Order: sequence, then structure tokens, then C-alpha cells
Amino acid sequence: MDDSTDVQSRQVEHRFKITRVGVTNVKKPIVVDRPTGKRTLNAIIDVYVDLPSDQKGSHMSRNVEVTSDLVDKTVREPVEGLENLAATMCKRLLKRHEYASYSEVDIRSDYFLEKTSPKGKSSLENYQIRAKAEGYRDREINKYIGVTVIGLTTCPCAMEGVREKLRKRYPDIAEELNEIPVITHNQRNKTTLMMEVPPEREVEVNDLIEIVENSLSSSTHEILKREDEAEVVIRAHENPKFVEDVVRDILSNILEKYEDFPDKTHMEVKSESEESIHKHNAMAERVTTFGKLRE
Amino acid sequence: MDDSTDVQSRQVEHRFKITRVGVTNVKKPIVVDRPTGKRTLNAIIDVYVDLPSDQKGSHMSRNVEVTSDLVDKTVREPVEGLENLAATMCKRLLKRHEYASYSEVDIRSDYFLEKTSPKGKSSLENYQIRAKAEGYRDREINKYIGVTVIGLTTCPCAMEGVREKLRKRYPDIAEELNEIPVITHNQRNKTTLMMEVPPEREVEVNDLIEIVENSLSSSTHEILKREDEAEVVIRAHENPKFVEDVVRDILSNILEKYEDFPDKTHMEVKSESEESIHKHNAMAERVTTFGKLRE
Amino acid sequence: MDDSTDVQSRQVEHRFKITRVGVTNVKKPIVVDRPTGKRTLNAIIDVYVDLPSDQKGSHMSRNVEVTSDLVDKTVREPVEGLENLAATMCKRLLKRHEYASYSEVDIRSDYFLEKTSPKGKSSLENYQIRAKAEGYRDREINKYIGVTVIGLTTCPCAMEGVREKLRKRYPDIAEELNEIPVITHNQRNKTTLMMEVPPEREVEVNDLIEIVENSLSSSTHEILKREDEAEVVIRAHENPKFVEDVVRDILSNILEKYEDFPDKTHMEVKSESEESIHKHNAMAERVTTFGKLRE
Amino acid sequence: MDDSTDVQSRQVEHRFKITRVGVTNVKKPIVVDRPTGKRTLNAIIDVYVDLPSDQKGSHMSRNVEVTSDLVDKTVREPVEGLENLAATMCKRLLKRHEYASYSEVDIRSDYFLEKTSPKGKSSLENYQIRAKAEGYRDREINKYIGVTVIGLTTCPCAMEGVREKLRKRYPDIAEELNEIPVITHNQRNKTTLMMEVPPEREVEVNDLIEIVENSLSSSTHEILKREDEAEVVIRAHENPKFVEDVVRDILSNILEKYEDFPDKTHMEVKSESEESIHKHNAMAERVTTFGKLRE
Repeated sequence: MDDSTDVQSRQVEHRFKITRVGVTNVKKPIVVDRPTGKRTLNAIIDVYVDLPSDQKGSHMSRNVEVTSDLVDKTVREPVEGLENLAATMCKRLLKRHEYASYSEVDIRSDYFLEKTSPKGKSSLENYQIRAKAEGYRDREINKYIGVTVIGLTTCPCAMEGVREKLRKRYPDIAEELNEIPVITHNQRNKTTLMMEVPPEREVEVNDLIEIVENSLSSSTHEILKREDEAEVVIRAHENPKFVEDVVRDILSNILEKYEDFPDKTHMEVKSESEESIHKHNAMAERVTTFGKLRE
Repeated sequence: MDDSTDVQSRQVEHRFKITRVGVTNVKKPIVVDRPTGKRTLNAIIDVYVDLPSDQKGSHMSRNVEVTSDLVDKTVREPVEGLENLAATMCKRLLKRHEYASYSEVDIRSDYFLEKTSPKGKSSLENYQIRAKAEGYRDREINKYIGVTVIGLTTCPCAMEGVREKLRKRYPDIAEELNEIPVITHNQRNKTTLMMEVPPEREVEVNDLIEIVENSLSSSTHEILKREDEAEVVIRAHENPKFVEDVVRDILSNILEKYEDFPDKTHMEVKSESEESIHKHNAMAERVTTFGKLRE
Repeated sequence: MDDSTDVQSRQVEHRFKITRVGVTNVKKPIVVDRPTGKRTLNAIIDVYVDLPSDQKGSHMSRNVEVTSDLVDKTVREPVEGLENLAATMCKRLLKRHEYASYSEVDIRSDYFLEKTSPKGKSSLENYQIRAKAEGYRDREINKYIGVTVIGLTTCPCAMEGVREKLRKRYPDIAEELNEIPVITHNQRNKTTLMMEVPPEREVEVNDLIEIVENSLSSSTHEILKREDEAEVVIRAHENPKFVEDVVRDILSNILEKYEDFPDKTHMEVKSESEESIHKHNAMAERVTTFGKLRE
Repeated sequence: MDDSTDVQSRQVEHRFKITRVGVTNVKKPIVVDRPTGKRTLNAIIDVYVDLPSDQKGSHMSRNVEVTSDLVDKTVREPVEGLENLAATMCKRLLKRHEYASYSEVDIRSDYFLEKTSPKGKSSLENYQIRAKAEGYRDREINKYIGVTVIGLTTCPCAMEGVREKLRKRYPDIAEELNEIPVITHNQRNKTTLMMEVPPEREVEVNDLIEIVENSLSSSTHEILKREDEAEVVIRAHENPKFVEDVVRDILSNILEKYEDFPDKTHMEVKSESEESIHKHNAMAERVTTFGKLRE
């Protein structure tokens, strides 16, 4: 069958460009080679190109072929970073879709990392990672890498409100109540950090996870025996945080860690707490560039 | 077209009975008439019958017709209880599906109730309600009604672990630390109570919501100004609860409230806490009858 | 308590601006007054403001108060359009958060509309609607309204591939096979249209729903008796569509319907088909302005 | 700290038994050793025990420890079947929770299998697998294994309705229209098969996947070039199926494949089609034992 006679190449009725067209929710195992050893990620992948106004349809099977070819190869040749795999896919997409001027690949996956509790007990903790690349015919590929971390926030505002009340109720220890961490509401928090990886630079997802965990009231741990549990609770209450604080601390830590990254480096941080005293969530977000933050 | 010649009535190759066949995820607004006024619920409805081994297919459009006829009528004649609507639908289904011996209807919906915070501020709180009915040709219909409530639990175990640690760290106020509520982890909790409504009896969902909220460490509130917030936090910490405690308190309160309900009355309670110090959840459940609980 | 001494107003450690901070997932019933009568929508609402670099925390309870005040009022004074409610909320947010320069409100809800099948049978069909507003201190509010519609697409590419094969297999009717609609794969499609509502203009969601449904291979219907079912299947196959076609037809229909809207009017269309022959989805999207489309 | 003095062992206020208490949504990578090679599954695990009426709380951290110990060991010693891992976990749980008489483990995971399209193109297809075990002190462990498969169903009823209409519209080829597959609606279908694995027997998930795929109108494939696509469409339309047919064909195929399994072997099959002409789904289900099916 001649490709030039296919339905995709027929006359277009309404000649509008399509921003993105492709396949979403393709599931694939990807083998990555980390400093800590090879591991298999179960990924969900979206693969797009643009479509000019005079082309009726995009050849979507090519998107899946590019995905299969490059992802299945990782079993024999593991990739070092998901964002590099996404970038390679973007280049190949532009080759296969001769009518496209833009390509985009978005990869999400569960991810596991060995972590240690305050008392030294180690366990495998679960995170989500995400990589993205945007390809152009006439300029360099944009690459992004990101993590989503589940952690713990304790509310600084309620803590002060409670402290006042307790001081009135227990006047004998009013002074001590200013020193000890007092009760407040705390909650499961989900924080996502996504940043651009400039050309010739590298970003290690394990570092991003560490930066996010250090910016929360406390990290969470799958196994906490009694001693450890008390320790985590105390630390979290010595470190009360609004979602705004979490976002700002991450911004600050990222700027410091990647101080030589160019001003145009893009960055997004979003922190959402599943409020325990409300049915709704509290959310703070910053979408920006390194340059704006350095101002 | 003669129904006897339709595809559904053709020869069956593998003559096995089908336990349930029907339509799921039908969305419909339902108007209910509550003591507190008429309200419109946006419901999701599943509608099933069984299918004997010698009938090839079930006439699924009849399920949707029964749903439309009876649900759309509520605009003019609001129903008093969702479980009664489900029961009426079950009867009609058995009439329309002459080959069926069983019918089942399951209705879920968001639900709103005005609630008052400790300091007297009122707000409209969100809940989920669920009604279910199972119809038979040869015996009475089973009806069920249930609620899902988002609330707050504080962990009694971590509270004790923390108290020990704090007493060592602040020996001067060791005695007072036994009296005051100390820090622990607390979390968003989702508790579901589903119970049978015996013939000739009534169960008010608002009562079920109250019973669940009273069995949690605290109810949650959409609006809490600073005073209120501190009050909720203190109450919740004066009332630490395992998910097991939440389930048992509900069982006890239900038994007391509906003390004249027969022994065979079915009941299910499930309480799940989105742990703030872990990435996983904690869950406790009891599936039972009033008779078993009275033993 | 003096607001100036609250935790939110304390010294900020890392002085970065926050793009958006607020509450998400607030559930509320909203009463709207449509030409077809009053109806209650069960909405999910997100409410944000920005936060300057020198303010530690945003007063989130104000977001919920603004929501409660304005939404609960709709019971007595129903709103005409959700985007207008969102805009009013944006104004009030800027009043309550004196430190904010931006506010944003996002409202999603199920929505029902009476529709008629090809053979004239009417049923209540389910849609999702979404309204959004962005408020600024120094310029006009941006308002958006949108719909999500579930419909049916039939694949034009597979239809041609099948036609060729059938012509070879049944050479006696090869000519007729060019005329009749032949088999192809078809699937559930979810299409979202979101557009800006310029100042002094109005957009009726029912019109948006009609435009989307007319751009699909066919609309879907909750009740289809046998005659109707065949009719829908034939129509859908006489009208095969790629997701790219769906997007372009909507763009064309919108441009025509709102021909007097200004060039800067923003618009987004996204069409996603749950492919029946694949486990993944096919998606096409255009994000643009009226001006770009008119070029 | 002495376990006998912990909060979990304190006096119980309302002495009711708890049916299941434990942790849900624990995420872990599991290494399994299949005839086709070792692979890493990213699993979600629920781990429960029961709780007697006189024990206040269950020691939930033991559930996570049992999970970590046995699952993390699979990196060095891969397990052969998930249901055997679940069974080993059940035994260990009863050892660790001396007060429990019941234990339960439920494991779900994505799963990939290489499949071949009609024209011989191979691709890695995605499935879900699930394993479950129920442990008792006084009798053998129950083990279950299951799969969820995404496939394609074409409606036999609409096909006949359409055929009648087309015959009237094209009387010249009325006879041929009885022979060729005609248009109908077809849709993404999700079918789940879960069955008990009797003691001393084995069930291979790849076999279950094959049985389900053979019982659908067609399997789905990630990559289908034009020839293949037409082939899949034609096959699917030569093989129209109600969800009832899918369930019955699976029951029949399972009975034949495992003909020596005992009568009490439990089995559940559920097939749900995302209707392309409706917004709701069609579902059929059978919950039964081999003995009942053999009657």
C-alpha cells in the first residue's frame, strides 16, 4: 500500500494546525542503569507530534513503533536517565513524522529507593518519577526530570493557636509550653518538583527526592517501630511547615544545589496537603525559571 | 420486530447461568425529599439482573428504561429514601426481565449536610451516601443504606511513645505531661458504614453520619477560624483512636440506636486512615449481623 | 487576636513569590438558573491567590469563606453562569487577601441535558462542565467556560483498509462495497472544549455541547431501542473521524458561531479516544486564540 | 519496652471482634521467576489479620515487616508465583500476630507479555495480575490467582439490526449482506478472571490471559500496521460477543483446561464493556465454583 494514498494524507476540510496529536497511556517496562544497580520501571508513556494544517491525519502507529523500538532496547542496553530516553524518542519521532515540526514525550513511573528511619531501620520507599522531552527541528531538545514525594507536614498556625489555649488551661507550665512542641494537625502531603535539565548537565532523581524530603516537616517511612515512630512525630512537630514553606525551601535548595545552571532553566514546584481537619486540600505552587528566582 | 426472534433469545452455546448482568455507571440526578427540604443528588447507578443458563443475552436497554422512568419521576414526585427508590427499581426490573429471578440496584451520590463547628460556625459539609436493594421473585427485597464520612483520627500508640520521650527530655514537667494531650500523628480518615434496613423500619442517613462522626477522634469542618481550629485539634488529641476503635464505637452506637432491629440485620463498617507518617493506609473492617454483635 | 501577629504574617526565610496558593477539592452544591429551569450542580472548586515574597502564609480559611458566602447564596439567588460566579469570587478574593495581586477560581461539575435519539426517544444525558476565572488588581478578569462530552468516533483509516480486503474477498459486490459503510473499529471518545468568554459577551454551555456532539462521528445516548441503535451505528459509520478531525471541526464551528469574538479570545480543544483495538488512547489537541485560527 | 504494656494490649471498651485490620496500598517491587525469565513487578499489597474482641489494637508495623522481609528477599530468591508469596506471607502473619486466627494478603501488579498480531508483528502487551491468600490456624491456606485483560467486543445485537436496515437499503446485495460481517458498535472491554489454586496444583497466569483473550471478540495489540488493523477489525466482527458470551466462554474454557480441579474450586469472571454508543458500561459476572458449573 502506498503511503501517499493513505487516509491520513487526504484533503483536509478545515485547515487548522494541531498542537499535539499522538498516543497516551502506553504502558511499558523500562530498564534503567543507576549508580545503585539496574532496575525495571513500569512506565506510562505519552507520545505526541504536531500536525500541519494541510495534513489530514498523523500516523499514530509510528509513535508506538518508536516507543517499542527504543524502550524495548533498554532490556539489552539500559538507559541512564529517563529524560535522555525521552529526548532520543523525540528525535526519532521527528525523523518518522516528516510533516511534524515538534515532538513530545512524557514518561511517568513508580520508583523505589532505600531509605533509613531516624533509628536506622532501612526500608524501600515508593516515589513517582517523571521525565519529559520536547523536540524541535530547528533548535535543541528541552529535557525535564521530576519527582513526586509523599511526606508529612505539621501546621504552624494551629500549633500557635493551641499553645495559647494550653497556656491558659495549664498556667503552671505556661513557660514550658513555649519550649516543647505542642499538638497541631498534621497530614499526608504530596509534593511534586519538576525541573529542566540544561544541555550538557545532569540531574540525579535521588538528589531531587532528598531535596523534597528535607523541605517537608518530615519524610515518611514504611516501617516505624515504636521508638522510631515517636522520633518522627517529634521531629515533624519541631519543624512545622505551611505548604508555602515547603515550596520556598525546595526553591532555595534547588538554586543552591544547581547554582551553575543557566537563568532560563525552567522549574515547577507544587505541594499539596490532604488536610486532616478539613475535607479539602491545601496547595501551594511556583512555576518559574532560575533567573526569576535569582532576581 | 418480534422479541422472540431477537439475538438475546437465540441458542446459547455454553449453558451457564450469569450471576449479574446489566449496566454500570449510569449518571442521573435524583430529587429526594428530606425533613430538611428537597434536594437534588447527582447519582451514579448500577442496575443488574441475573440470567438463566438458557437465555443468550439480557435486554440491557430495559435496565436503563427502568432507571429513567423511575428516577426522572422524582423531579415531580421526590423520593423519601434512596433505598426505597432502589427497591422500587428492583421490583420493576423483575417485571421487565421475565427470565430473571434476581435484580440488584446500587446508587451512590455526593450528599451535603449543614454542620456546626465547636465555636458555632456553620458550614455545608460533604458526604457520600449509598443505597442498595436486592430483589427476588419469591421473597422480600433486601434494602441497604450507607454513608462515607471523612474525619480525623489521632494515633494513641504514638502519643504514648512521644509522652515517654518528652517526660525524659523535660523532667521538670513530667507529671503535667501525663495530663495534657501530647503530640502524635493524625490523619484524614475515611469511614464507611453500610447497614440493612429491615422491612417496616426506617434509617435516616443523617443519623448514620452523626454516629460515624461521633466515633472518630473528631469530625472535620470546611471553615475553621483560628479559635475553632485550636479547639478541633485539642478535642481530637483528647480522643485518640485506632481505626479498630472507630469501627468498634460505630458498631456499639448502631446497636444502641437501632436496638429493636432483628438479629439477621446485616452491617458493614470500614475505617481507613491515610497515615501521615507512612505512605500506606491503615484499615479496619467488620462485616457482620446484629445477632452476632449481640452474642 | 490581631491578624498582624499571626503566623502567616511572620518573617519569611526564603523570600520567593508563590504563584498560586489556596484550597483544592472543595465540594459544594451550586444552584444555577438556566433558560430551561433552575438546577443544582454538585461542584468541585479550587480557589487560589498568589503570595508576595515577603508574606509567610496565605489565609486559606478566607478562600473557603469566600466560597461559602457566594456559593451558598445561590440557593436564594441562583447564578446564571458558573463563569460569572467564578469571576465574582475572584473579585472578593482580592478584597479579602490584601497582599494578593492575582486570584483564580476553577469550578467543575456534572451536568445533565435532555437529548433526543435519532428515532425521537428523549433521555437525560450526562456531561461535565467547567468554569474558570482569573482576577487581577489592575486589569479585567479573564473568564472561561467549557464542556466535556462523551461521544463516539469511527476510524476512517481502518475502514479503508477493511474495504480493500472485503473487495478482494467478495469480488461480486466490489462496487457496492465502495458505497456502503463498512466495518471499522469505533470507540468511546471524550472531548473537552474550553474557551474564553470576552467581556460583555455570553457563551451558553448547551451550545458548546451541541457543537462538540455535531463534531463527533455520533453522539451517544443512554437509551437506544433496537431501531435507534442501528440508526446510531449507521450514522457513525457514514461519518468516520480521526480525533484530529473532531478537533478541527470544533474549531471551525466555534469560529463560525462566535464570529464577532475578538482575536485574543483563548480556546482549547482536546479529543481523546479510548481505542478499542489498542490498550492505549489516541489524542489530538489544539491550544490557540481566535486570531491565530483566523490567520 | 514490654509488648504486654503497649497501647494495643490495653483494655477494650466495646468488645467486638474485627474481621480484618491491617495496612493497604503498600507499594513494593517483587522479582518473579517465570519460564520466560526473571522479571520485576511493581506491586500494590494489602496485608490483614483479624483481631479478637479482647485485644484493643493490631500491631500494624508487623504487617509491613512481614511484607518487607518476604518481598525484599525476592531480589535474591525470586518467587515462582505471586499466590505462593501471598501464602508464605499469610503463614508468617499468623506467627507474628499470636492473637490472630485469620490472615489475608492481596497483591496486584501490572504485567507484560510478548504477543503476536495476526500478521506476525510482536509487541509487549500490558495486563494486570492479582494474587490472594487467606490463612487460618486450623486449616489449609486458600490461594487465588487472577488476571485483568483489556480486549475488544463487537455487539451481535446491533449487527443484526444494522443488517436488516442495510438489506432494505441495498436490495441488490441483500443476500451477500447475510454473509459479510456488517457494521456494529464495538468497544474497549475489561475482563477479570480470578480463580482458586487448589493445593498441590498450579495455574500459570499466561494461560489465564490466553483463555480470556480467546473468549473476546478479539485481543488488542499496541502496534497494528494497516494490514494488521484491517485483519483485527474483520476477525472481531466475524466474532461478535455480548459480555454474557465472554463470561460463558471463559467459564467453559477454564473448566476444560483445569478439568481435574476439585468441585469446591472457587472462580469469578467479570466482563465490562465501555459502550461506545452509550456513556455507561455493560457488565456481566459469574461468581461460582467448579462443582456448580459441572452440574
